[in-house]
Amino acid sequence: MVFILKKGVSQSAVQEFRKDWESKGFSTIWAPGTDHDAVCLIGNTSTVDMDAVVYTNPIVAYARRVTEPYKAASRTVHEDNTVITIGDVTIGDGGFTVIAGPCSVETEDQITTIARLTKQSGAKILRGGAFKPRTSPYSFQGLGKEGLALLSAAKKATGLPIVTEIMNQTQTPLFEDVDIVQIGARNMQNYDLLKEVGKMGKPVLLKRGLSSSIDELLMSAEYIMSSGCSDVILCERGIRTFETSTRNTLDISAVCVLKEKTHLPVIIDPSHACGIRSYVPALSKAAFAVGADGLLVEVHNDPAHALCDGAQSLDPEQFGNLMSQLKKYAQIENRSI
Amino acid sequence: MVFILKKGVSQSAVQEFRKDWESKGFSTIWAPGTDHDAVCLIGNTSTVDMDAVVYTNPIVAYARRVTEPYKAASRTVHEDNTVITIGDVTIGDGGFTVIAGPCSVETEDQITTIARLTKQSGAKILRGGAFKPRTSPYSFQGLGKEGLALLSAAKKATGLPIVTEIMNQTQTPLFEDVDIVQIGARNMQNYDLLKEVGKMGKPVLLKRGLSSSIDELLMSAEYIMSSGCSDVILCERGIRTFETSTRNTLDISAVCVLKEKTHLPVIIDPSHACGIRSYVPALSKAAFAVGADGLLVEVHNDPAHALCDGAQSLDPEQFGNLMSQLKKYAQIENRSI
Amino acid sequence: MVFILKKGVSQSAVQEFRKDWESKGFSTIWAPGTDHDAVCLIGNTSTVDMDAVVYTNPIVAYARRVTEPYKAASRTVHEDNTVITIGDVTIGDGGFTVIAGPCSVETEDQITTIARLTKQSGAKILRGGAFKPRTSPYSFQGLGKEGLALLSAAKKATGLPIVTEIMNQTQTPLFEDVDIVQIGARNMQNYDLLKEVGKMGKPVLLKRGLSSSIDELLMSAEYIMSSGCSDVILCERGIRTFETSTRNTLDISAVCVLKEKTHLPVIIDPSHACGIRSYVPALSKAAFAVGADGLLVEVHNDPAHALCDGAQSLDPEQFGNLMSQLKKYAQIENRSI
Amino acid sequence: MVFILKKGVSQSAVQEFRKDWESKGFSTIWAPGTDHDAVCLIGNTSTVDMDAVVYTNPIVAYARRVTEPYKAASRTVHEDNTVITIGDVTIGDGGFTVIAGPCSVETEDQITTIARLTKQSGAKILRGGAFKPRTSPYSFQGLGKEGLALLSAAKKATGLPIVTEIMNQTQTPLFEDVDIVQIGARNMQNYDLLKEVGKMGKPVLLKRGLSSSIDELLMSAEYIMSSGCSDVILCERGIRTFETSTRNTLDISAVCVLKEKTHLPVIIDPSHACGIRSYVPALSKAAFAVGADGLLVEVHNDPAHALCDGAQSLDPEQFGNLMSQLKKYAQIENRSI
Repeated sequence: MVFILKKGVSQSAVQEFRKDWESKGFSTIWAPGTDHDAVCLIGNTSTVDMDAVVYTNPIVAYARRVTEPYKAASRTVHEDNTVITIGDVTIGDGGFTVIAGPCSVETEDQITTIARLTKQSGAKILRGGAFKPRTSPYSFQGLGKEGLALLSAAKKATGLPIVTEIMNQTQTPLFEDVDIVQIGARNMQNYDLLKEVGKMGKPVLLKRGLSSSIDELLMSAEYIMSSGCSDVILCERGIRTFETSTRNTLDISAVCVLKEKTHLPVIIDPSHACGIRSYVPALSKAAFAVGADGLLVEVHNDPAHALCDGAQSLDPEQFGNLMSQLKKYAQIENRSI
Repeated sequence: MVFILKKGVSQSAVQEFRKDWESKGFSTIWAPGTDHDAVCLIGNTSTVDMDAVVYTNPIVAYARRVTEPYKAASRTVHEDNTVITIGDVTIGDGGFTVIAGPCSVETEDQITTIARLTKQSGAKILRGGAFKPRTSPYSFQGLGKEGLALLSAAKKATGLPIVTEIMNQTQTPLFEDVDIVQIGARNMQNYDLLKEVGKMGKPVLLKRGLSSSIDELLMSAEYIMSSGCSDVILCERGIRTFETSTRNTLDISAVCVLKEKTHLPVIIDPSHACGIRSYVPALSKAAFAVGADGLLVEVHNDPAHALCDGAQSLDPEQFGNLMSQLKKYAQIENRSI
Repeated sequence: MVFILKKGVSQSAVQEFRKDWESKGFSTIWAPGTDHDAVCLIGNTSTVDMDAVVYTNPIVAYARRVTEPYKAASRTVHEDNTVITIGDVTIGDGGFTVIAGPCSVETEDQITTIARLTKQSGAKILRGGAFKPRTSPYSFQGLGKEGLALLSAAKKATGLPIVTEIMNQTQTPLFEDVDIVQIGARNMQNYDLLKEVGKMGKPVLLKRGLSSSIDELLMSAEYIMSSGCSDVILCERGIRTFETSTRNTLDISAVCVLKEKTHLPVIIDPSHACGIRSYVPALSKAAFAVGADGLLVEVHNDPAHALCDGAQSLDPEQFGNLMSQLKKYAQIENRSI
Repeated sequence: MVFILKKGVSQSAVQEFRKDWESKGFSTIWAPGTDHDAVCLIGNTSTVDMDAVVYTNPIVAYARRVTEPYKAASRTVHEDNTVITIGDVTIGDGGFTVIAGPCSVETEDQITTIARLTKQSGAKILRGGAFKPRTSPYSFQGLGKEGLALLSAAKKATGLPIVTEIMNQTQTPLFEDVDIVQIGARNMQNYDLLKEVGKMGKPVLLKRGLSSSIDELLMSAEYIMSSGCSDVILCERGIRTFETSTRNTLDISAVCVLKEKTHLPVIIDPSHACGIRSYVPALSKAAFAVGADGLLVEVHNDPAHALCDGAQSLDPEQFGNLMSQLKKYAQIENRSI
């Protein structure tokens, strides 16, 4: 951490400032400048409230942090990619893993049909919402427990592992048969939930919040990892910007940034990012091309009558076409799919 | 709801579209245009998934919603201001109610001292965090249960009602002695929490999410109200924008918008909005001038050594000066403070 | 245009409102609703200041516009893709046209070398800045007129058409030998410049402003087109959001939206979007995959010593590698490159 | 400037890096850290392209700038407030200077009437648009030269100094009788215009761009000042955010930030910021309370029939009421108005 000092600070004030830090176990370095002098703080600065020092200490003008505040999630500490394995499915090993399914689980027939059809086209994991976070209290809130049972039935019928969203910490006992626990975008900074989910002993799919920075996403991953879970899948699903032509703005560059900063796998959810079905195939191909580890894509057997988010769901035929194209892309990049 | 149709749609397709809606209990109105024709849908359209119609129905180009999706929170339905009463304190009756206290409760002496000093200057309610949502799992997370006990002690010592944040639904039994339950910005769309807090029989202070629209804030209020609570205080605390000179961007116009759209009281938290102590007095006066119903402001007896957010806390003397100025403003507007 | 009326408006007020519009040559349609009644306005509403009506007319609550305010740029009016031809180079015909070159023209040797090397790898047009918009008055502002001469020399040496940025309307006489005139992001709403450039009789490359919506981009294209130019190339180059890990946020979905709304070709500038060289190849491949008509990419023979934006420039070898990969992608999509 | 080095960099590489800078006239300081070592660069670093170093030098991980890139505009260099004097009107001397008038000049009667009425209520300067930047080429573009003549007539009739917007550098000869030249938000980074306007020998009112940071606003002021003009008035007029309830989001905290960073006067334009007339008085009072040096507010004698932006204009009576209230506020703060 570097503290840039105000102009005209006396040497005795600087000495006192340095001694104060040294008494707390840090080393300090004196760095005089043309306009401003600075003091560099050496040691474990992750516990220092930088802003508090700046605004409360009369000699400090600015401060800058030099190291990232996340550790377990950082590639600096853990260079090799984390590969997550669920049965014979892997995420993060260089392949492109496609997770597909409906926004909401509706009936056993619906979820099993979709599972079967998407598996035929190459999907490796089944998604489906049982507990649904909806903006309005008057909207359909998901089938709940019954939805989980239907997902289990589809898993049994097809062999596909399942991923579904948890909405609060009292639900953990219900998730025994779930293979990957999803944290939704609106809960990305529900820290109590992150801590509890990190203790479940299952891989976690963590969606980026609508207005969360990449660093905050990594800090939320850090919460889960510091509870004992090392298998976190990060999911970019669109951020909130001034542009309203699409529901959110897919931050595709986030994949580049995350691949550099962390060893965790990164997937893209094009369906929620844009909210418009006809854009999903193009964005899915872009997700592959940019180097994501996989896709979370909405597929519904009858989008026009879906209970939730039908507008952004592909039908199984459209999904099949998309997978054919992705397979050609995968071939030229020599990636499995 | 108005559906604008694509060009060149056949009359028979339009007839079928209208019949389909009429069979579901809506009335329809035919509105031909120069470029596009339209169909107006009359009835309770709050259950219609507008986007789904647009993207799945081949004859529809656009759609527009005419009425707000929130009901209980809307001024259209409930014209008079909601006035919230806690003992002899009121919020929303035209006065300016100041809530003050530290970011985190630290010790009994700290919280009781601050309570006493802020009360002397004119604060009417005591705030203080016991459970703290922190970006990093390695930061101080609050005193928890013990913090609640210290708040109760300060309440007993000074007579000030207390407001503090709840972080998850398992905590409700601990909040018996709390007068106003706070939902933090990061939990504004934690719908399960909103529903549970709405059942507690206590006023709720709902903070706007960093990137939540005003309509979403009202929908979250609607969640709480639909669980049985009619005393919701809305709090603007800064939104996330591209500007980084202040921690967040205080959306002061939100007060104007909310006062028009809803009957619920609206307060401002200048401390979290800007994150910089020296800006807090100016922003507090602006909050008064724009017509907010009150203030949520951080005060700490020793900001330089606060365990959390010291950078934005006033000390009791600065708070006293601010209150003196606010009282002059209140006098010319003939508002109680 | 649809005007939604306030509650409880008298029928005589509605009659007067409709007559007022009808006297101005519009037709009106009465559309009663459950909560609110509405009046639909039929005719050329592009001249109506919708907000003014809403806020000044006492009986109107809301208004909604039904048709887009741009005409020449709209696909509704002009269904087929616009194909732009410069010599034997085309943009918008289904192929993928790569424009490459340095941020700033520096010397004849520099620009000619880059032109030759990028042409060998498959670039079809040469870019290079002569007049540079720089945030600081103390930064290098480009070679100006001399830079244009060096671009001409490189054009003569290699046969590549050239594109370069114009900064104000007094410069048009200097651009005689320039093949495509570029409007920079900061000038996207410099309407006087748009009008003058539209009269030059040359194709225009219009970059999206940092915080301009897609509709505003199309309105700026409309300015150019209404001055007589029909060959406008739109360029997405990143928008300003809260995320700071990349210089801007590449709005890749904008390609999908623009392809639907307009017949004009759309290209992507990954270099300015992210500002970081190592991300450029991945984003370029994503640009291809999402369906853009081409790329505007920075290439410098010696990025470490570039006078401007070296941090985001590829060197010729990196560019060559990228082109090899793009050619493979182009093959599977059956697109020329 | 501080360069934070990558891990595991050899001492010889560091020596070479430091020598390279020292050969360019800088001093360097070695600052070892626990996780990362750093090199501090001492000297005039305003010419160093920090990002270029980071992305092209293999041993550098991050860099941080310590001093602001603007000089003339900075309070560090020039501590006392700049006071701008036009005849007997001052801006920046602690008073609250109100500039009022219509969005567009329409007729001599209109502009003179408004000038007279607003002067009676206490306005000190007359605003009015002659050249209008409009999003659509089909909207009214202002009266142009004739509009300037009408402004002059109103100035003669009332004695009020006038401020109006310049749209391009060819217009400077037309602005002889104009007292303050306005740069609009969309031209804030039209650097060629800034340079020319800086040479006009008149005070400049510089509006903040919709998505310009405070630092960029100061850099644009620096452009004007580096052309020889020291009288720049900064104007906050709303920024673009995700919130759409108001036209833009008034960044009221920007006043606090600017007052700290620069000695230039800062005013607020509440009319453009919100776009809704009924919010203008409340926001104007907030502008006073937060410490702005004045107001730029739209007043039209007949808002319902204004040719432009009628929705946000006060009528003279509403303006008079606002001024009465502002005068009471001014009294308690002991500021002239």
